[in-house]
Amino acid sequence: MEFKAKDIAVLLKGVVEGDGEVLVNNVSKIEEGRPNTLAFLANPKYEHYIYSTKASVVLVNQNFVPAQSVPCTLIRVSSAYEAIASLLRIYEEMVRPKPQGIEQPSFIAEGVVIGETPYIGAFAYIGKGARLGNNVRIYPHAYIGEGVVIGDNTTIYAGVKIYYGCIVGCNCTIHAGTVIGADGFGFASAGEDYNKVPQIGNVVIEDYVEIGANTCIDRATMGSTRIKKGVKLDNLVQIAHNVVVGENTVMAAQVGIAGTTKVGAHCMFGGQVGIAGHLNVEDRTMLAAQSGVTNDVAAGSVFMGAPAFDAAKYRKAYVVFRKLPELYGQLRELEKEIQTLKSKQ
Amino acid sequence: MEFKAKDIAVLLKGVVEGDGEVLVNNVSKIEEGRPNTLAFLANPKYEHYIYSTKASVVLVNQNFVPAQSVPCTLIRVSSAYEAIASLLRIYEEMVRPKPQGIEQPSFIAEGVVIGETPYIGAFAYIGKGARLGNNVRIYPHAYIGEGVVIGDNTTIYAGVKIYYGCIVGCNCTIHAGTVIGADGFGFASAGEDYNKVPQIGNVVIEDYVEIGANTCIDRATMGSTRIKKGVKLDNLVQIAHNVVVGENTVMAAQVGIAGTTKVGAHCMFGGQVGIAGHLNVEDRTMLAAQSGVTNDVAAGSVFMGAPAFDAAKYRKAYVVFRKLPELYGQLRELEKEIQTLKSKQ
Amino acid sequence: MEFKAKDIAVLLKGVVEGDGEVLVNNVSKIEEGRPNTLAFLANPKYEHYIYSTKASVVLVNQNFVPAQSVPCTLIRVSSAYEAIASLLRIYEEMVRPKPQGIEQPSFIAEGVVIGETPYIGAFAYIGKGARLGNNVRIYPHAYIGEGVVIGDNTTIYAGVKIYYGCIVGCNCTIHAGTVIGADGFGFASAGEDYNKVPQIGNVVIEDYVEIGANTCIDRATMGSTRIKKGVKLDNLVQIAHNVVVGENTVMAAQVGIAGTTKVGAHCMFGGQVGIAGHLNVEDRTMLAAQSGVTNDVAAGSVFMGAPAFDAAKYRKAYVVFRKLPELYGQLRELEKEIQTLKSKQ
Repeated sequence: MEFKAKDIAVLLKGVVEGDGEVLVNNVSKIEEGRPNTLAFLANPKYEHYIYSTKASVVLVNQNFVPAQSVPCTLIRVSSAYEAIASLLRIYEEMVRPKPQGIEQPSFIAEGVVIGETPYIGAFAYIGKGARLGNNVRIYPHAYIGEGVVIGDNTTIYAGVKIYYGCIVGCNCTIHAGTVIGADGFGFASAGEDYNKVPQIGNVVIEDYVEIGANTCIDRATMGSTRIKKGVKLDNLVQIAHNVVVGENTVMAAQVGIAGTTKVGAHCMFGGQVGIAGHLNVEDRTMLAAQSGVTNDVAAGSVFMGAPAFDAAKYRKAYVVFRKLPELYGQLRELEKEIQTLKSKQ
Repeated sequence: MEFKAKDIAVLLKGVVEGDGEVLVNNVSKIEEGRPNTLAFLANPKYEHYIYSTKASVVLVNQNFVPAQSVPCTLIRVSSAYEAIASLLRIYEEMVRPKPQGIEQPSFIAEGVVIGETPYIGAFAYIGKGARLGNNVRIYPHAYIGEGVVIGDNTTIYAGVKIYYGCIVGCNCTIHAGTVIGADGFGFASAGEDYNKVPQIGNVVIEDYVEIGANTCIDRATMGSTRIKKGVKLDNLVQIAHNVVVGENTVMAAQVGIAGTTKVGAHCMFGGQVGIAGHLNVEDRTMLAAQSGVTNDVAAGSVFMGAPAFDAAKYRKAYVVFRKLPELYGQLRELEKEIQTLKSKQ
Repeated sequence: MEFKAKDIAVLLKGVVEGDGEVLVNNVSKIEEGRPNTLAFLANPKYEHYIYSTKASVVLVNQNFVPAQSVPCTLIRVSSAYEAIASLLRIYEEMVRPKPQGIEQPSFIAEGVVIGETPYIGAFAYIGKGARLGNNVRIYPHAYIGEGVVIGDNTTIYAGVKIYYGCIVGCNCTIHAGTVIGADGFGFASAGEDYNKVPQIGNVVIEDYVEIGANTCIDRATMGSTRIKKGVKLDNLVQIAHNVVVGENTVMAAQVGIAGTTKVGAHCMFGGQVGIAGHLNVEDRTMLAAQSGVTNDVAAGSVFMGAPAFDAAKYRKAYVVFRKLPELYGQLRELEKEIQTLKSKQ
């Protein structure tokens, strides 16, 4: 399929600058632009590419002022990032496979309820009494334990494992290999050995949650481990038993949250962040990648380091850390000078 | 089912304080207590909840002295934590699904030996010559490679993959998605490229080991990677080739141990700890979360930081680290003062 | 099977020192040597074991000079490490299972092309239009999405999930549980919520790549996430959308690379390294375990720390960091001395 630049501009409520008749049949990145593709420029870091890109059309922000002439047609939109996202959604709708129906062999136990227009892939396992809403997609090798409930329009990718009694909301996406509801890590010391603390709670995932691949969310000891509405978790994240993650909080890959910690709403955590157990990390906390949180964190904090504290202060301390050998020498020097001064008195 | 507080007290060898006739039909957390539920108070951090909890009955330690009056019946026991654990075990026994038999379709190759009262889920794969003890439970999508041996009473959850020739003991639990016996990461540099070092050993997991979800334990280059009796590993842990983990050692999520390192018995590692290869970490070592160990560690050490050293010393050094910008200023100040002193001489 | 030391020496182009008639029937590690086994000594750290090993034969480097007499036959070779690797390859060829054919039940969709001498395990799923080269091995529970292409001689272990449209080269090995081509983690903020940025690109894995277990490589937003020829990734590694990893680069377990970062060729990353997004890490960069990279890195750098900088400088700074409490005391002392000096003037 091909589209004219001017037609795309209409679709995106943008303004064409340059040849509106040029044809586009695919998207590309501005640094790898090819003729008859559309690219976008949102991050100023990439601006220099626009002066030599081979892309025929580039989406830019309304207020973009080129430093020199550009070799492509521009479409000015209020947000280049949002515009490309909406174009990509249209494109994706055309290319992403949309499997339907119930493939064989699959295993659907007694008492399972399945809504309208399902996809259940081959080798999917749906345990006793599980209930699936409308338009649910369960990919091959997914394991849905006894009594699990999955809301409308939710997609469970290949090989996801959901233990018995867990609940997943509507419009969620869970990527391949993720494990929901394994036992929390609870052991009571009994002399030299440990006794396992039974984990009888579950996991509740609310609506509009997206979870990456090979992530783990453990069931609660009692009650529920809860992932609230709109949360986005990346790959290989660890959420321990009884953790609560607040609405619209976003965690990058390989983050780990220990047991019973409460994370507020609208937080953003970089990759490989670790948070100790039994803490309160309040709303809108931002944690730099690899931060290690060992105390409660007040709302709106921006933290860094391990143990983590105010990021601006951390950066300043780290500047001095890099100079420590020098400082050490200076201190020795001062000692000598003082000795000299003392000897002269 | 409902129980009277006084009957629970008898079961737990505890002493009732308050109304022994009050009925309980579920458990709850003290901070989320509901009427007719039983909660417990072990961690003093949660004491304030007991003065307003809605739970009807609370298990407390024998020596608990309320700071004010409590709105609930107390049951005093020698250890509230152990008492609740034993109650939870009884409760879990009632609610956790206990699947049995051999579901179809499953794949059981020639020469497989299966003990008494097995569970083999649909889509489980048992390779040639594998031997399963009595009461073994193999959940759906588990892959048991050729010649694997699994001891009595062991549970292998959904989608666990065990490569050929590995051995799992009795009374073990391995959670969903964990991979046992993939090749160790060994490559010999050959000019610009690498030659793979064949990994011909196996993994041996002894009795009473529990392993979390999506954890990886690589097979040995030669000999065995060994997880000794009573070890507990959390989710997303990495155990490299030829590592030995001593008895009853406990590792939290996302810990990584590099090749050929020996970890002693009764160690406790926080989340995201990393240990370099070819090291000896001796018995009863405790490592704070995110520690990075780069040298041998003597028995009983308590370490922190990366590279890790004595935790108490690390904390003291870190206190000063936070003040480094200030210190830097003070040092500059002293230099000036000395210049002034010198000029005056 | 048994071999004489002198026959092994011929095979490895080595020179026997001691009894060439001694028989060997297995390999062992030098520290756990048993009679009639062959061990090797490459790492000088292990030299002391050779003076008491029970192994009958030990492979050593040509230039090895024993500090005392050794209780075993030596075979001197140009590289003990390479020699043992080549012996292990021969041994492995004899013991590793080599499954063949198409097991049932498996799921092979319409339009799938399969090359010569395949192995397709039970419960493997091959989606519409996928193309598999010659000698491809797809283990049980692997999911090969629509239109995926897999080159000759590649092995896909149990439970690997490859999303639609991804490409895997020839002579690759992907270990169990790894997920290739899940959506990149891209969300555009929309007030309090997030809109998902569609991820319409794919993953391209070139030839001779080995990937460990439970690793994740996300598909590109647009274009391709690319793992170039000869790359080796360990277990539980995270490669985000649009990352490019250069030829023969090696990453240890639990490394995480954020979106759109370019990693050069011949780099070596220790375990748990994290690299922020949109960076250039040039060829032959070496990163110590747990390093956190937040800026571009020039070719050939050796970095450490978080944020990472020159490793030698980091180590020096860290030596002083450990002494900070002492330094703090000394600074206070100097202040006092200066006060004294001033008061005396």
